[in-house]
Parts: sequence; C-alpha cells; structure tokens
Amino acid sequence: MTGASLAIDVSKVHGERQFSQADSVAVEEPLEIQLCSASAADSAAKSVSITMRTPGDDAELAVGFLFTEAIITSASQIASVQHSGDPAPAGFRNVIRVELEAGVQVDLGRLERHFYTTSSCGVCGKSSLDALRVSGQQPLSDVTTRFSREALVRLPDELRKEQEVFSKTGGLHAAAVFSPDGEITLVREDVGRHNAVDKVVGALLMANRLPAHGFGLLVSGRASFELMQKALVAGLPLLAAVGAPSSLAVSLAKEFDMTLIGFLRQGNFNIYSGAERLA
Amino acid sequence: MTGASLAIDVSKVHGERQFSQADSVAVEEPLEIQLCSASAADSAAKSVSITMRTPGDDAELAVGFLFTEAIITSASQIASVQHSGDPAPAGFRNVIRVELEAGVQVDLGRLERHFYTTSSCGVCGKSSLDALRVSGQQPLSDVTTRFSREALVRLPDELRKEQEVFSKTGGLHAAAVFSPDGEITLVREDVGRHNAVDKVVGALLMANRLPAHGFGLLVSGRASFELMQKALVAGLPLLAAVGAPSSLAVSLAKEFDMTLIGFLRQGNFNIYSGAERLA
Repeated sequence: MTGASLAIDVSKVHGERQFSQADSVAVEEPLEIQLCSASAADSAAKSVSITMRTPGDDAELAVGFLFTEAIITSASQIASVQHSGDPAPAGFRNVIRVELEAGVQVDLGRLERHFYTTSSCGVCGKSSLDALRVSGQQPLSDVTTRFSREALVRLPDELRKEQEVFSKTGGLHAAAVFSPDGEITLVREDVGRHNAVDKVVGALLMANRLPAHGFGLLVSGRASFELMQKALVAGLPLLAAVGAPSSLAVSLAKEFDMTLIGFLRQGNFNIYSGAERLA
Repeated sequence: MTGASLAIDVSKVHGERQFSQADSVAVEEPLEIQLCSASAADSAAKSVSITMRTPGDDAELAVGFLFTEAIITSASQIASVQHSGDPAPAGFRNVIRVELEAGVQVDLGRLERHFYTTSSCGVCGKSSLDALRVSGQQPLSDVTTRFSREALVRLPDELRKEQEVFSKTGGLHAAAVFSPDGEITLVREDVGRHNAVDKVVGALLMANRLPAHGFGLLVSGRASFELMQKALVAGLPLLAAVGAPSSLAVSLAKEFDMTLIGFLRQGNFNIYSGAERLA
C-alpha cells in the first residue's frame, strides 16, 4: 500500500518516564466516489459516496462499494476507474471516478433511499432482512464448500503476518479471503472496517472471481450486519470474525444460510450459524 | 440499557471439544432519525439519517448526532424527541422523531453535502480541516483545563467496570466523559463507535453541560477524524483513545489545539497533541 502510514513524532509516557520518539500513524483521508457514463449524452459525474479511507487500492474500494451496495452487478459494466482532479494538500488524490459503459443504467435511487447512512438497512419500521430480500439476494443454501477447522484456528496468526501497516501503526482493520484449507489469497487494510471488505470484494470482482462460493472472508474486528451483507452479495458463504458478532449479523447469517464464526482467537471459536460447512 | 443484548445458543469450539452454550450478543438494529417542525405550517417529517445502533438512549443518539453534525446548535431548539411508528418485527422502535421549536431553521444542505457518507469531511479535493473551519469551529486554545496523568492511566480499568453490555457480549464500543481527576461521569455503549460518542454528546447537550470545556472524552477503540471532530464540536478539549489515532485525527487535534492521547493501556500512553493539558 502506498501512503498508508505517516511518520510522526510522539511523546511517550511510560510510567514515570516521558520521552519523544519517531512513530507511525495510519493515514486517514476522505475519498469521494463519483459515477459517470461513457455515453457522451450523459457524461456528468455524480458524487455517490464520501468515505474516510486509507489511501491505496482506491479503485478496488470504489468498485467494491458500488458492487456491495448493488449499484453495479458485474465488472463488465465498468469502462474505466481513475482518479480525478488535483491532489489534496497532503498529496493524496481523494476523488475517484468510475465510468460506466455506455447504456448501463444504475439505480441511484438505491443510494438515495440510504440517504446519509452508514448502513444498508431498509426502511427502519420494517425488518432490515426484508430490505435484503427486496434487493434480490438469495440464500447461499446450495453452496456446499467445506472449511477445515484446523485451518480456521490458524487464520488469525496468518492474517497478522500479512498486516503490514497494522504492525507499524496498530491502527488498521483488515479483511482477507481464504481457501477451505486456510490459505489466505487476498488481504486489504483500511482505517474503516467496511472499506477493507469493499477493497477485497472489489479486487475479487475485477479479477472475475465473483461469486466467491469457494472461499471464506476473515475480518480482524467484529461482525456487523453490514459486513455480513457484503459477504452475502459477494457470494462468500462463510464469514469469520476475530471479534464478536452483532444480533443482526447472526440473523442475516441464519436467514441466508451463511456460516458465521466469531471470537476466532487462541485456537477457539464460536459458531453462530451454518456449522455444517465446517469439515 | 434496555434491549442491548440478546440471548442466543451458540456452538463453542475449544480445541478438540465442541459444545452448545447459552450466550449473549450485542443488539444491532437500524435507527431512522427524522426531523420535523413544531410549526403547523411545516410539520412534515424528513428523514435525515439511518444508522445501525444498539437500542437504548435513542433520544440522546438522535440529539447528539444532530448537534455534532452542526444541524442544531442548542438544546433550546428542540421541542420534543420521541419514537414514532410501530415497533419493528424484533420489537424495537426504530424510528425517532426530533421536533424543532417553531421558527427554528436548520441547514439540511449540510447533510445533503454529505450525501451517503459516514464522514463529516468537506469537499475531498480540499482539506477536510478546511471544511471544519468553514463550519465555524474555533480552536480550543483558551481552554486551560489540566488533566492528571495518574488519573488518565486508571481510566481504561474504570471504563471496563462501567461497560455492562460489553462484559456480556464483547461486542460494544464505549465512550465516556471524565473529570480532570479521572472520575467517569457518563458512559454510553453502542455497536457503532460514532453512535457511542453521539449518545454521550446528546446526553451532555440535554443536561445543558455543553460546551464541556472541563472534561475529557474516553473512547474504547481508535481515534478517527470523526470522533475528534465530535469532541471538538462538544468543546471537549481532550480525547483519550485506548487504541491508535489516525493521521487526520492527529492533524485535527493540532489544528484546533486539542489534546490527543492514544494507546492508553497498561499504565502507558502516547501524546500526539496538546501535552500542556497534562498536569
């Protein structure tokens, strides 16, 4: 990752001692995601999201966000993805523009319904799971991939080894894709947990690896409704979290026949849904 | 907190053993925040935010959100705050309506500029800090509160004692307000880190305790730009995070003369800005 950490001077207080030391912090900068069309008749760029992210893998983040929010449905809808505008004062390019192929229609109403929200829930008076059904997501009941228990418990250590920036800054979340025998094939880091997952999904989409029925998703933190939903949209049948799941993550996993693992640490884990996928 | 955790059955895998056990997970449900006016001529409710939150303290969350996003500027602008509509299927009331006093004008354009964003940044091509200056926030240079170092290092243990739901579920973030000598006077928990801070700020606002120049803010996780900004808007001169700060949190702290403490754990901490406030 380029520009993911920044060197700073910090005053360290250790018991009675205080001393200055060079240190690193994780970079956090805003990213504006814009959509435009390759058809000349409709080429005005529209801002669809502003997120605080760690620079690097911006194209994957933008594409993954659009896919997991169901704004786009395939990589073939994308003509190009590139930064736009001048660098911000800190030197980062904070606007990225996704150009859709001519004729591709997207439902920006999906975003407007989610006006100013960090979530992808539906109408709050209804069940959030209803909103997912409305968006056409199908349960992953037919996905018969089996994951090795022994491989699962090794994953947190494997992930830690891959987390370059975290080890310098202690300040980044990670998301990783792993095979049934526990091989990590893709890792992305970000100050935002959702962004780390969007980067992973965007990378899979651009590599034509979706739906990713044969893989699991590992996240370094907790399992929320949104992360579970992003895994579902990407066709990942298993989500394993180092931290705790939320109630709605468990509900979503059960409703859509996904496997949800939590508290994956120190050789142990909890199974909240879909135990049949563990060999 | 009411309804903050949910009892479930979970399969626990401990090494070679697997067994079923009753357990608890943190509740995550959507909350829609609506604004309306007490003047009859303009009483249509407008949805301004949907956030995934842990039920409980919804009024504080709504009011704190509106205040830290600079939509409202004082408690006196609020006529009432109450839930609206029927309970969702899980039994939670997920819509809350803030009624503004007749004649109070709010700039919803502020929200629209932030369309579909988790952040409060400005235009991404500019500096995010510029956006804060534009919104009229002043540096806290004149706030001379001094915090005890000895009290600071005791805070994480004090916070843990107060975290009722976390101790049951392992799944909640916490935010707390503390005095210069380390007394925690207010704690709120939520699945979302921003929500925990919004609840704290909302509680302070409704108790007419803002600006909170004489107190510090403690957060159980990392220090991001957004959390730092919320502390600034509430007039809290010091933010102490158990986890790491981001680059933009450090920049904001320096620019607005705030004190930023990170990695506050095991008796040690780092000072990223504003060391003069530590006695």
